[in-house]
Order: sequence, then C-alpha cells, then structure tokens
Amino acid sequence: MDDIKQVTHVTNIRLEDDLKSVVIIDQTLLPNRLEYISLANAEEMYDAIYTLKIRGAPAIGIFAGYCMFVLAGKISGEGEAFLAEFRRLKEYLNSSRPTAVNLSWALGRMERVAEANIKKPKAELLAALEKECRAIHSEDIEMCRAISEYGLSLLKDGDGVLTHCNAGPLATSRYGTGQGPLLLGREKGMNFKVFADETRPLLQGARLTSFELSRAGLDVTLICDNMASIVMKNGWVQACMVGCDRVAANGDVANKIGTSGVAILAKHYGIPFYVLGPSSTIDMSCKTGADIKIELRPPEEIKNKWYAQPMAPEGVKCYNPSFDVTDNSLITAIITEKGICRAPYEKSLAALFG
Amino acid sequence: MDDIKQVTHVTNIRLEDDLKSVVIIDQTLLPNRLEYISLANAEEMYDAIYTLKIRGAPAIGIFAGYCMFVLAGKISGEGEAFLAEFRRLKEYLNSSRPTAVNLSWALGRMERVAEANIKKPKAELLAALEKECRAIHSEDIEMCRAISEYGLSLLKDGDGVLTHCNAGPLATSRYGTGQGPLLLGREKGMNFKVFADETRPLLQGARLTSFELSRAGLDVTLICDNMASIVMKNGWVQACMVGCDRVAANGDVANKIGTSGVAILAKHYGIPFYVLGPSSTIDMSCKTGADIKIELRPPEEIKNKWYAQPMAPEGVKCYNPSFDVTDNSLITAIITEKGICRAPYEKSLAALFG
Repeated sequence: MDDIKQVTHVTNIRLEDDLKSVVIIDQTLLPNRLEYISLANAEEMYDAIYTLKIRGAPAIGIFAGYCMFVLAGKISGEGEAFLAEFRRLKEYLNSSRPTAVNLSWALGRMERVAEANIKKPKAELLAALEKECRAIHSEDIEMCRAISEYGLSLLKDGDGVLTHCNAGPLATSRYGTGQGPLLLGREKGMNFKVFADETRPLLQGARLTSFELSRAGLDVTLICDNMASIVMKNGWVQACMVGCDRVAANGDVANKIGTSGVAILAKHYGIPFYVLGPSSTIDMSCKTGADIKIELRPPEEIKNKWYAQPMAPEGVKCYNPSFDVTDNSLITAIITEKGICRAPYEKSLAALFG
Repeated sequence: MDDIKQVTHVTNIRLEDDLKSVVIIDQTLLPNRLEYISLANAEEMYDAIYTLKIRGAPAIGIFAGYCMFVLAGKISGEGEAFLAEFRRLKEYLNSSRPTAVNLSWALGRMERVAEANIKKPKAELLAALEKECRAIHSEDIEMCRAISEYGLSLLKDGDGVLTHCNAGPLATSRYGTGQGPLLLGREKGMNFKVFADETRPLLQGARLTSFELSRAGLDVTLICDNMASIVMKNGWVQACMVGCDRVAANGDVANKIGTSGVAILAKHYGIPFYVLGPSSTIDMSCKTGADIKIELRPPEEIKNKWYAQPMAPEGVKCYNPSFDVTDNSLITAIITEKGICRAPYEKSLAALFG
C-alpha cells in the first residue's frame, strides 16, 4: 500500500479505514520517535492540538475537518439534536488553539455542510461531511503541489539548495511549500543537495525539516544557522528556498527569524533567494514590511529550552523575535499556487488578485 | 580587596597567597556555577587542562607558568636532581593538550629560567621562577590592554556593539581581545549596549561572553546567531567586534564559525566590522584565507551536545566547521597591540613586522 508518494513524503494526517478515528504523527516525539496515534474521541483530539502533537496552521485545519466527520459519525441524534451536539463539539475543538485561523476556518466549512444537509438521511449527511473533509485535505495538497511545481521549475537536478525553518509536509500536506519543490522533485526521480539550517531557538530545521527530507530520500546536511555563509562560500548552494508567514503588497516578506540574514548572504554570494507560500499569505492591506508586527517570545526559549541545564546566566536578557522581515530587494521571486512573481512586486503581486 | 578592576573583569587565574597552589575558575561549571578551584599538585593541574576547566590558549599558557612555579617550590632536590624533576613535571603538563601552542611556549619559558638560575640558592631560583610566571601573566594583560585601548578609540559611549563567540578574560587575561574594549570602557565608566551571539554549536557567547560582560556591569542582550540581522536592521548596532584565530598576510581572517556571516550582514547594513587580536595571530607566511585549513568537528556537537535528548534524526549528516574565513574586503580594521591596521592590509600588516 506504500506507493511512491507515501515513500517520498510524510503522511501526517489520515482517516482510519473504518472511518472511526483520525491518525496523525505525534510531532512532539520527533525526531526521536516516529509514532502514529489514533484519535477517536473529542477529548483526545482537543489534546492533540493543544499539546502540539499536530502543528502548522494548514495541518491543523485538515485535522479538524477529519475530526468533525469522525465525531459526527458517533452522534446518535438527528436533525436539530444532531446539529446542537455537532456545534458543541465544534466549539470545543475550536477552543484548543483559538488563534489558529485555519482551525476555525475548517470547522466553519464542516458546520456549513452539516447545516445544508441536516434534513437528509444520516448516511447522506455523513457522506457529505466525509466529502468535505477530504476536499479540505485534497485542496491543500493541490495548492502545495502547484507551489511545488512552480518552485521546481527554478531548480536543476543535483542543485544545492539551502532551506531555513520548516514549511514541509508536517505543517501542511504532502509536499509543503518551502520544502515542496525538493520533495516533488525527489518524487520525479531528481535529487538535490539540501542544507537545512537548524533554525534556533525552536530547531524546526533540525527536528522537522531534516526528518522529512531525509525520510524522502533526499541528500540532507544539517548545519547551524551561522554556517550558511561558509556553505555558500564553498559553492555548494545554487538556490535558497523558504516559506513565508506574511507577504506585504510591496513584496517584503515576514518569515521565521533568520530568514532575512540568509537572504543577505545569498545576495552577497550571488545566489537566488526564493520565497514560497499560498496566495492567502499575501496581505494586500499591508503596504510594506514595516507594517508587520513582530511577535516577541520568552527568553527561556534561548536560554533553557531543550537543554539538560541552562546555557546562559540566569539574569541575562534575551531578545527573541519569532520572525524577521526580508526586504523585497533581496528576493529573487515569490512563488504561489498561481505562479511566479518577480520584481516589481507591487505590480506582480497585485496582478494575482486582479 | 576587590578594586574596580576586580569588579569589572573576571580574575580567571591567580597564585594563592601562600604560593602553594594555583586558583582558577572551573569553566566547565559556567554559567550555572561560578566556582574557584585550588590546584596544588601536578595531577590536579593536568586534569584541569585536560578536562577544559581552563581553556583559551593564552589562559592555558598563563596557568602553566604558575603551575611550574608552584610545583618547583615542592621539589626537594637541588641542582641537576631539581632540574630532572622540573623537566619531568613540565613534560607531564605539556602532554595534557599537546596542540596548545601557548602551553609549550609558557612551559619553555619557565624551563629556561630554571636552567639559567639552577646554581643559585633555592630561594633565589624560586624567586626567579615566580618573577617569570608573573611576567607571562602581566605581559598578556598589557597586550590585551593595548588591544582594548586601540579598540575603545573606535567606540563612543552608549554605542550598540555586536559580538560573536568569546575572546574575553576567561580565554586570556583581564580584558581579553574581542570583548576587551567593552570591559576597558566599562572600567572607565562608559557603557555599551552589547548584543552577544550565542554562537552555536558550542555556545561560547551564551555560556561565557554573556557571563563575563554581565558580571562586569555591561548591558548585555543574548541573541541567537540568526537574530544578528534583525538587531542590525533595528538600528541597534554601531559596531561589530570579534577576536581572531589566524590572520593571513592579505587581511583575510579565520575566526569562530559564523564570523563571516556577521561581517556580510554588517557590510549590508553599513556597520563597521572590527577584528581584534594579538600580532602573534598574524601569519605572514599565509598569503590568503584560502591557505587556512578549516577544522571539521563531529556532528554530535550539532545534534546532541547540551541537549536533554537528540534534536535531529540519528542518521542525518552534519557539516560542522569550527571556523570560517572572513574576506579582507568585509573588515573595517584589524586591531593588534601595535595599533589599528586598515586596508590595504598587505601593506598595513607587513608594516607591523617591518
């Protein structure tokens, strides 16, 4: 049953064959253990989101869709009684991570389908819900595939590619965005020499990207963030590819802390720097990167997290921004599911929404 | 007895008042515990070097000088019998870290003084040895002070200064090199807003630099290496200051991994980038940075070291160079105890040895 797609990518979320539970990878155990867990009731599902067993906004949305379908199958009532219980469960799951936009978006889609089909026989209602949650997933896969195809058109077989943070299958579906061209290319029989920045302080590159890419059979070398310069100087990098959290109308990009440094190094060494993400991350109401508020996180992430004992004196201050903004002048192209945009970004990005 | 100098710098090595032992900070316990340990016999001294309780080439040299003096005071014989035992102890200590040039250099200085004074009464012989080991220390302090004075002339009170790795008192004496201007300036009543890169994978910035500088009353903010770009973009950095391991005749500089990346960011943001070190690190026989061999270290330092559990999949490759080379075109000035050198470095560095 493992076809080539399941060998080269990580199947992070799926419905159990009997449709009575949702199976996910417990991401909190990575990279030390790859363990699939099966979640059959609302409390387990809530806990999985709350404790970050599943993370990444698109992945949470996909998971929530499947959860509502599984839970709907276990509601005994019909009509208004069914709908009341369905909504109670939806609100309960929604409260697990209230700021995750994709969570409430996916739950809302499932609720509307339940409402539209509430007068139909239970089997038809459930079939409509199953269709919707599978659609949420397959739409995300198609979007990631389109981004990956466009991104792959910018690479040659054997290229060295430097990545930062994680925008792969665990956070999305199948291919991911920033790492999507690498996985899609691998599926097509290509290979790349990937350099994965470990991405301090949360180590998404070490824990997740290197896991996903090496499992897909890609040639991955993990480096500390401060080694990107020597790797580029050695001539080992032909392209940089990263995801994005928010893109301003002028093409300035907010992404994981350290992205702007990678872009500056790439420019210095004459290496193209590509940003990949769904068009939904382009915020046309945000004129420039200066309008993007940068989340600051606690010093413990730098001084204590992951370590056996603290690695800095107790009283020392830390500055721990979660993101930085990369100037549009450093970006070779921005790749969405709609195509490849190049400077001037004011025009090329606006054209996507025209 | 703590004068201002002892408040604003870390006294990492000293002779005990009774001259019967050497007192050092156990660096393996930093930053969690500041513990001074007293070493009275050759086995303890050997162990302190071997297990990195004391580290940093100049610091090891200073320590070895004091050790030989203390051990000489405990040798019972005279004349050739004294010298034979002195040499046996010298060779024993020298074998603790055979590649540390300063270790054999300092031991050699002590041996020559023992030889030159071997026919004198024991008290005079010991006095000569005490004078020599104190001279090794005070010469290093004076060299660091001269480097720091020149470096300080490049800063203004209140400047933001970004540092990378550790070239401070723990690795040298009193002021250090890369961090010397900050400590000297603090001693003179100035202050700076220091940003210390944590410096993966060995975390010298987190564990040692932030410890030394905060203890001296400087305003230190610890950041991950990948945050240097946003800190510079925020306008918080007026100068970068780093140490050096080896300088080529053309001004290319080998220093801790990540240094070249900081220099590229500094150039991008228009911030001066200064390299500080003793003139003994300038290797005129090395024409350019391309001639400097880069030490590669084990992947465990990236994947496992310091962590409570592994942070990357077991089989994933790592590239872990200990140093990188910063091109002379990125360096605003190289500062030694002999003065400030600027481009063209072929000429300005050669003039130091003219």
